[in-house]
Amino acid sequence: SEPFSNLPSICTALFEAKAAKGLTFEQIGNAIGRNEVWVASAFYAQAKLSKDELNALAQTLDIDQSSLNAELGEHWFPRRSIGPAIPTDPVIYRLYEGVMVYGNSIKVVIHEKFGDGIMSMIDCEVDIQKKPTDKGEHVVLTFEGKYLPYKKW
Amino acid sequence: SEPFSNLPSICTALFEAKAAKGLTFEQIGNAIGRNEVWVASAFYAQAKLSKDELNALAQTLDIDQSSLNAELGEHWFPRRSIGPAIPTDPVIYRLYEGVMVYGNSIKVVIHEKFGDGIMSMIDCEVDIQKKPTDKGEHVVLTFEGKYLPYKKW
Amino acid sequence: SEPFSNLPSICTALFEAKAAKGLTFEQIGNAIGRNEVWVASAFYAQAKLSKDELNALAQTLDIDQSSLNAELGEHWFPRRSIGPAIPTDPVIYRLYEGVMVYGNSIKVVIHEKFGDGIMSMIDCEVDIQKKPTDKGEHVVLTFEGKYLPYKKW
Amino acid sequence: SEPFSNLPSICTALFEAKAAKGLTFEQIGNAIGRNEVWVASAFYAQAKLSKDELNALAQTLDIDQSSLNAELGEHWFPRRSIGPAIPTDPVIYRLYEGVMVYGNSIKVVIHEKFGDGIMSMIDCEVDIQKKPTDKGEHVVLTFEGKYLPYKKW
Amino acid sequence: SEPFSNLPSICTALFEAKAAKGLTFEQIGNAIGRNEVWVASAFYAQAKLSKDELNALAQTLDIDQSSLNAELGEHWFPRRSIGPAIPTDPVIYRLYEGVMVYGNSIKVVIHEKFGDGIMSMIDCEVDIQKKPTDKGEHVVLTFEGKYLPYKKW
Amino acid sequence: SEPFSNLPSICTALFEAKAAKGLTFEQIGNAIGRNEVWVASAFYAQAKLSKDELNALAQTLDIDQSSLNAELGEHWFPRRSIGPAIPTDPVIYRLYEGVMVYGNSIKVVIHEKFGDGIMSMIDCEVDIQKKPTDKGEHVVLTFEGKYLPYKKW
Amino acid sequence: SEPFSNLPSICTALFEAKAAKGLTFEQIGNAIGRNEVWVASAFYAQAKLSKDELNALAQTLDIDQSSLNAELGEHWFPRRSIGPAIPTDPVIYRLYEGVMVYGNSIKVVIHEKFGDGIMSMIDCEVDIQKKPTDKGEHVVLTFEGKYLPYKKW
Amino acid sequence: SEPFSNLPSICTALFEAKAAKGLTFEQIGNAIGRNEVWVASAFYAQAKLSKDELNALAQTLDIDQSSLNAELGEHWFPRRSIGPAIPTDPVIYRLYEGVMVYGNSIKVVIHEKFGDGIMSMIDCEVDIQKKPTDKGEHVVLTFEGKYLPYKKW
Amino acid sequence: SEPFSNLPSICTALFEAKAAKGLTFEQIGNAIGRNEVWVASAFYAQAKLSKDELNALAQTLDIDQSSLNAELGEHWFPRRSIGPAIPTDPVIYRLYEGVMVYGNSIKVVIHEKFGDGIMSMIDCEVDIQKKPTDKGEHVVLTFEGKYLPYKKW
Amino acid sequence: SEPFSNLPSICTALFEAKAAKGLTFEQIGNAIGRNEVWVASAFYAQAKLSKDELNALAQTLDIDQSSLNAELGEHWFPRRSIGPAIPTDPVIYRLYEGVMVYGNSIKVVIHEKFGDGIMSMIDCEVDIQKKPTDKGEHVVLTFEGKYLPYKKW
Repeated sequence: SEPFSNLPSICTALFEAKAAKGLTFEQIGNAIGRNEVWVASAFYAQAKLSKDELNALAQTLDIDQSSLNAELGEHWFPRRSIGPAIPTDPVIYRLYEGVMVYGNSIKVVIHEKFGDGIMSMIDCEVDIQKKPTDKGEHVVLTFEGKYLPYKKW
Repeated sequence: SEPFSNLPSICTALFEAKAAKGLTFEQIGNAIGRNEVWVASAFYAQAKLSKDELNALAQTLDIDQSSLNAELGEHWFPRRSIGPAIPTDPVIYRLYEGVMVYGNSIKVVIHEKFGDGIMSMIDCEVDIQKKPTDKGEHVVLTFEGKYLPYKKW
Repeated sequence: SEPFSNLPSICTALFEAKAAKGLTFEQIGNAIGRNEVWVASAFYAQAKLSKDELNALAQTLDIDQSSLNAELGEHWFPRRSIGPAIPTDPVIYRLYEGVMVYGNSIKVVIHEKFGDGIMSMIDCEVDIQKKPTDKGEHVVLTFEGKYLPYKKW
Repeated sequence: SEPFSNLPSICTALFEAKAAKGLTFEQIGNAIGRNEVWVASAFYAQAKLSKDELNALAQTLDIDQSSLNAELGEHWFPRRSIGPAIPTDPVIYRLYEGVMVYGNSIKVVIHEKFGDGIMSMIDCEVDIQKKPTDKGEHVVLTFEGKYLPYKKW
Repeated sequence: SEPFSNLPSICTALFEAKAAKGLTFEQIGNAIGRNEVWVASAFYAQAKLSKDELNALAQTLDIDQSSLNAELGEHWFPRRSIGPAIPTDPVIYRLYEGVMVYGNSIKVVIHEKFGDGIMSMIDCEVDIQKKPTDKGEHVVLTFEGKYLPYKKW
Repeated sequence: SEPFSNLPSICTALFEAKAAKGLTFEQIGNAIGRNEVWVASAFYAQAKLSKDELNALAQTLDIDQSSLNAELGEHWFPRRSIGPAIPTDPVIYRLYEGVMVYGNSIKVVIHEKFGDGIMSMIDCEVDIQKKPTDKGEHVVLTFEGKYLPYKKW
Repeated sequence: SEPFSNLPSICTALFEAKAAKGLTFEQIGNAIGRNEVWVASAFYAQAKLSKDELNALAQTLDIDQSSLNAELGEHWFPRRSIGPAIPTDPVIYRLYEGVMVYGNSIKVVIHEKFGDGIMSMIDCEVDIQKKPTDKGEHVVLTFEGKYLPYKKW
Repeated sequence: SEPFSNLPSICTALFEAKAAKGLTFEQIGNAIGRNEVWVASAFYAQAKLSKDELNALAQTLDIDQSSLNAELGEHWFPRRSIGPAIPTDPVIYRLYEGVMVYGNSIKVVIHEKFGDGIMSMIDCEVDIQKKPTDKGEHVVLTFEGKYLPYKKW
Repeated sequence: SEPFSNLPSICTALFEAKAAKGLTFEQIGNAIGRNEVWVASAFYAQAKLSKDELNALAQTLDIDQSSLNAELGEHWFPRRSIGPAIPTDPVIYRLYEGVMVYGNSIKVVIHEKFGDGIMSMIDCEVDIQKKPTDKGEHVVLTFEGKYLPYKKW
Repeated sequence: SEPFSNLPSICTALFEAKAAKGLTFEQIGNAIGRNEVWVASAFYAQAKLSKDELNALAQTLDIDQSSLNAELGEHWFPRRSIGPAIPTDPVIYRLYEGVMVYGNSIKVVIHEKFGDGIMSMIDCEVDIQKKPTDKGEHVVLTFEGKYLPYKKW
């Protein structure tokens, strides 16, 4: 679970502290008041923690608060988007395959239901649920993003 | 709305018939008993219609049934995954960006909630809903896929 | 001035009619009530014309209104983003070079002035002005886009 | 906010000193007599500071002047253009998307307004302003570059 | 036999211990109750060992059990898929060439024998046998994967 | 089932004749004395049919023998390896993923069992079997290739 | 000598007329008052001919003046930069190799002789001379471009 | 001015000694009897210095002669061609753009003036001159390479 | 044996005439006084035939001499280097693999035996011989190219 | 002459010992009973030395035998194929260019002389000779590889 090498070194410390404490992202999310997927993205330096969240995180993981602030504090800003351009890990590739196979269909249905615009990936929430079924467990992955119509001028 | 050039030529005919009839994918979906996203993916040759679905589609769009069968019938099989490897259309790119920004987080949460495995993109449903909110409309995009644990041997 | 081959064939007709009429994009823009850059992007199938705009365009260019509607009407939707991924035409490459040389600086200043978010390229206007100076003419290119803060959840 | 690994190590020191001092690029720009975007590009080793600017910068950030000169002095020259060829950070990608979606339109309007030539990215200024509107804040990003006609011979 | 640099450092230790002990993957596989190909993939961090398997492995290779657990234990999860996207090592390239030359044929025969679906690479076993023939030794490489039909919805 | 555009046009005719006749590759293989995977690869111009095989194929599919010989006869030679360098169709991608995930393991086990050499993909047979199990059907895909040791000189 | 397929079709006509007339680029250059390299670049649609030059060219090559104006007239503008991004033709590759081997040296010497700026490729002339020497003929290829210092702001 | 990381570490020492001494490449070139561009290419490990040149260089820069010989002596050979395949630094990109825009024209004029062959980049000299003009300074960049006709056999 | 689509259409005619006549490249080579590999490269538009060779070829293949001259005559010049940048056909890939596996070794041995220079691929002959051995036939492929030392200046 | 960074560190030691001893690859080859090209490829970790060859090498270069065995002994296996996928060093690029220009010709002549098969690069010898001629020295580079016909099944 070591993060990518071009991320702030504090990320490794976060993952290690989490492993040492034996906490899940859900538990950490509850402790700082955020969804588990968002918390995981903060661990990968893909989201920015507020001052209060940093403090809560330091307390939850028994990490030194000042070093957390020194690396991920107010002045810090995320370089989002990590990993190879065409993902190769099977879990992430399946998501990419979903974009390649269903992307045009999603686009055309969004156009039909909403108009000429996009689903924002900035004003967007990502959620994962476990759903038991007769034939085994299902992963329910939801993106809920604001619809943004193209401006004309 | 002309489909990609390396798709069967019948796809263009499907899009043109749909435009001429003024039907939405939702309406066509209702007519043949399938979800609108799935229907759109069939229009892009990314899914395979059964004999009954081909007949219902021919009737709904007033397309010649035999030519539909000749191009997309039993012997036909989809070449899935279309468009450039790194999507450039803004709607589809946002989905790709979602994979690049949140892919590792989704992977680590799936691992935590389910174990060492993946969310299937084969045994998977894709759904789009429109959700009104105070600050405008939201697109709710859901992937529900079976969890597949890695086999050991 | 022939457009790219994977654009609707009507685009070629638009460019040819414009050349035959000897009109500038500014003049066409005035005629249909839109900025010249936006009009040019519609000629390249990068923007969607409303019914009224299509009619005004047909009249301005003496193009058959029904064929314009048949190709670019309500059912049509743009596939945005054309040309090679790394632009090679010198005019467009200079813009790309601007992104490569100043992109990080723009990002860090946006972060400092606005916070953790982006400048929208959807809710955005693009404008070009000619500005005479002592040392020759300047091109003044402006992007004005809405600031979108990252959602937390 | 650690800069890219192939930049002079002094760049990291600059960012750290700025964070420690709690200064914005605008404040540093005022102190050395330069625009904030240009200053940020100098921090990313994308612009060359003069001797006077280096001295003013050393004073403003309480950095050792001689080490600043040793790394970024007269003999030093920038290797411009950093980051992946197709940007992946969402802020920078939106700029790239602007080039991909509007690049041809910008080219054709420049051709129409100026002639067969380019907007220089060397003899060019970049500026960012915050503009409040009814619907939220806008980022106003301006490139002002000299028009250069193609030489014939 | 040093593994790839972006793998957990314990992987190098595993390969070195194996070399020092002079054990084959087949022998290690027998010791921990797994197939030799699967064991090799675990050495390359491409599979996840259970607690019992980790213990058996530590014993077999005389490696410290706690450091093995610290690096590859419960919290750890594999980033699968290593090496260049187009393999260049001749042994691995031949497998890739097999996919490029026979991939479409395999796809069309699977479609014909099973229907519209795929062979799972998750619920899959890989096996290698040596088979002597008159003209020399043959490598018999088998992939046995579950057939997964495409879901419709 | 139309083959790739850069293949001989006779390939399309072969697929169409097969569809019209309603024959499987297994049936065609039996008719010309070859395995179904090999026959499919010949349909994709990835293998070379002998004179006798061409005649048997012409008879089986009721295709004109002379045009078959004119396109695929003695003078013709295959350009092997078709489709994008990184396969995107899910069925073929899974095979590619198998190479990316298990390639190094296969290499190291071949080295251990055979020595410093490769499994030939030229002197090689590919076979697909359907195997029913308690939990559904399995695809059994086998590559049997000659072991070739590296020459020293 | 057929030009690239994405160039205006008139380009082929120019090359064919030149071949039919048996004229060299030097002769055509003399006839229209331009350097032979510039004329060749106009044949490849990499430069824009003025009205007078188009007329002189039409007369020199016995080409219909109106069709020349229809395709390459006032409204037309070049899409410059043709061929693969990494040239493969040996003649052009050698030039590319010159950039790869000597590019950094040229950059550092320009910096030393001129300052922080570039050699313009827009305000630039290209010339080719044949120079006999004792050991055979030399090609003397000269780029003479304006020096442009980086603007500061 | 630190050279690329995959060059011999002595290269950094050369650049640093040159900066400390405050010498230009022209001055060093005069001291060792070589052109300044060639000397710069030797600093970038793109050319091979003879024993005498190494000694003269050591003396000129006050560098230890034996360590220079140990790294760049008789046994050493250059790996030529550095930097990204598509150059991104603006100075070097302009040269690349010259190849992309004028490459075909240069090729066709060479063919016309010399025959079926190339301009050698091995038996070639590169020179840079500063030329003052009314409108500012010009960079005059010359490649003089031997013409090599294609051998027939 | 149809050549690549971006080659002159006469190339297809050459291959077809050769097939119709049932001639080998060796026989054609003997008829026009050239090596069979060189003749094959001329068929692929990778070499330039002289006037006499064109006439001899027209006679040998019963092809119309004037159309051969119209397409491949004096004014014509080859665009050399065809096929994908990383070859995928197994025969050609093996040659590429030879470059990837032994390229550095060849370079270092050339350096040792000849000095700082290259083996010319322009002043070079390529030859293929069949050599019977006890263990089957060998292909003997020889490149004989002039050694070119790097010029210093 | 430092080898590539992803090779075993012993490779650097081999090159350094060779330089210190002042031995050529030919001399080392004679000492261990192998061809100089093969020896060079072993130095680049592209070939596997036997136990006897390792011992002879250790003795010839005065290298510690046990460390040589520890790094390149029985358990070690080469990862063949090094350097960038499209070679950029001029010496190696010329070989690559040979594949790009003559690859199809070589393929078609092999097909004509041998049948549907390949020249093995595994069961293959590479040799370099210096050949004096009237016009200077020639490099004679020979690949002698076994012909492998495609298996049918």
